[in-house]
Amino acid sequence: MIISIIGVGLLGGSFALALREKYPHLQFIGVDQSAVNLKIALAKGIVDEVMPLEEALQKAELNVLATPVDSIQTLLPVLLNQIPAGRTLMDLGSTKESICAIADNHPNRAQYVAVHPMAGTENSGPGAAFQELLPGKNVIICDSKKSHPDSLALVEAFLRDIGMKIHYMTPAEHDLHLAYVSHLSHISSFALGLTVLVKEKDEKAIFDMASTGFSSTVRLAKSSPNMWAPIFDQNKQNVSRALGDYIELLKRFKQAIDTQDLEQSLSLMTEANDIGRILAGIEKK
Amino acid sequence: MIISIIGVGLLGGSFALALREKYPHLQFIGVDQSAVNLKIALAKGIVDEVMPLEEALQKAELNVLATPVDSIQTLLPVLLNQIPAGRTLMDLGSTKESICAIADNHPNRAQYVAVHPMAGTENSGPGAAFQELLPGKNVIICDSKKSHPDSLALVEAFLRDIGMKIHYMTPAEHDLHLAYVSHLSHISSFALGLTVLVKEKDEKAIFDMASTGFSSTVRLAKSSPNMWAPIFDQNKQNVSRALGDYIELLKRFKQAIDTQDLEQSLSLMTEANDIGRILAGIEKK
Repeated sequence: MIISIIGVGLLGGSFALALREKYPHLQFIGVDQSAVNLKIALAKGIVDEVMPLEEALQKAELNVLATPVDSIQTLLPVLLNQIPAGRTLMDLGSTKESICAIADNHPNRAQYVAVHPMAGTENSGPGAAFQELLPGKNVIICDSKKSHPDSLALVEAFLRDIGMKIHYMTPAEHDLHLAYVSHLSHISSFALGLTVLVKEKDEKAIFDMASTGFSSTVRLAKSSPNMWAPIFDQNKQNVSRALGDYIELLKRFKQAIDTQDLEQSLSLMTEANDIGRILAGIEKK
Repeated sequence: MIISIIGVGLLGGSFALALREKYPHLQFIGVDQSAVNLKIALAKGIVDEVMPLEEALQKAELNVLATPVDSIQTLLPVLLNQIPAGRTLMDLGSTKESICAIADNHPNRAQYVAVHPMAGTENSGPGAAFQELLPGKNVIICDSKKSHPDSLALVEAFLRDIGMKIHYMTPAEHDLHLAYVSHLSHISSFALGLTVLVKEKDEKAIFDMASTGFSSTVRLAKSSPNMWAPIFDQNKQNVSRALGDYIELLKRFKQAIDTQDLEQSLSLMTEANDIGRILAGIEKK
């Protein structure tokens, strides 16, 4: 079987590497706008050969659309127009509502499966891809009943076989949840990094004092702006609401500190400590 | 030589463990309000014996005050009143301006050395202490010229010998810098954890979608409220300013998203990416 990876970056590359480990006889075609990305993907053994999109689409049984979400919006109708009958297209985009809405209007909707793996790092590109990124993690399939049973079964089998835990939900649920547990934490990190970088202009030695706690909190601020800007844009209503909730809570912290209301500070932090329950669950995964 | 550890928690305990490794003949006395903490400290080999504060103070050559910063403020004048001549007192508190101001008014100021190691984890108590926490990390000594040369030399020797890198600054510089690179990241984590926990009340499965990126960003929200509330209070002006800067930047992000100003989103994130330079430095330490 031939699989095309359209966008040989962190996610697409890691998906291919995990599949190759499990199915040594699969053939992988790489498609990417960037010639360098394709060279790295070949050198790293992510794909066996590279070719233009149209050609790859004629050969592949399964097409994995793993570009940033703005390109997914552009490419999805093009691919659904050209995909041969009986073949399957899946995406790995971090937003689902607007992407699924585009697919819904297409006569070939049933050949598409909407997928989002809950995994990533602050690094991007095929150089950052690694076989262990996806196995053991959660993955979401949206609107599974709109996919043809054969396309759905193929995608489910591959996801399950590389060790992912499949959850099903609507695109609206997906985007709401992701705004809180992923998109918001990226913005909080970007803003935290920037706050200290701005201060550094006046206080040169400020980062000498930074420790591992700071480092883990701002790690996501290294993430790719070109990948994240369209995610925030496509999920703007949920992200804006999550960000509004977050700003309100920060203001409550600030007020407790400004008014020396230690009881309020203690109560907010004690309530936040309950996150330990969640983190234990995430680390167990 | 006998050393007293007043507050056998994460920092005091880790300092004792690192020193014991380097100087097997040092004797350690544990002092703590909590009988359980003392039992754990004895069981873990952090201290050799335990005794009341007054008694320990008469025996120890060096006293390490490692309680939360509100207790440091209370205990510091008591200890300086009772400390025998020629002996040394150091603290490990996360704030320095208000603590040093208390010491400055005391006739025995010269026996005190103001220390803050740039290390910690989200866990607390002697059970969380470990020998490797401090070696290799930065440590700050404030107002070093106000300490007697012998007291300063003793503390510097111990810090250097366990592998810490000593920096010198004023208490005001210390508190300003720490507000940005430590206190703010704790509040951002507490508030982020709480934002999602509040949302969880309506959206039960929300945390199933959380991945390792979320986990690293909210890790600090597990930190001890009793330790952090007095830190924020003692450093309230700097923390309030840092928090105000942070809220302003989050509002700029929110506005860029609300108005679909992708250029502004991209520009804020690209600027924040420069944090990679800082993180590389922290990871090298």
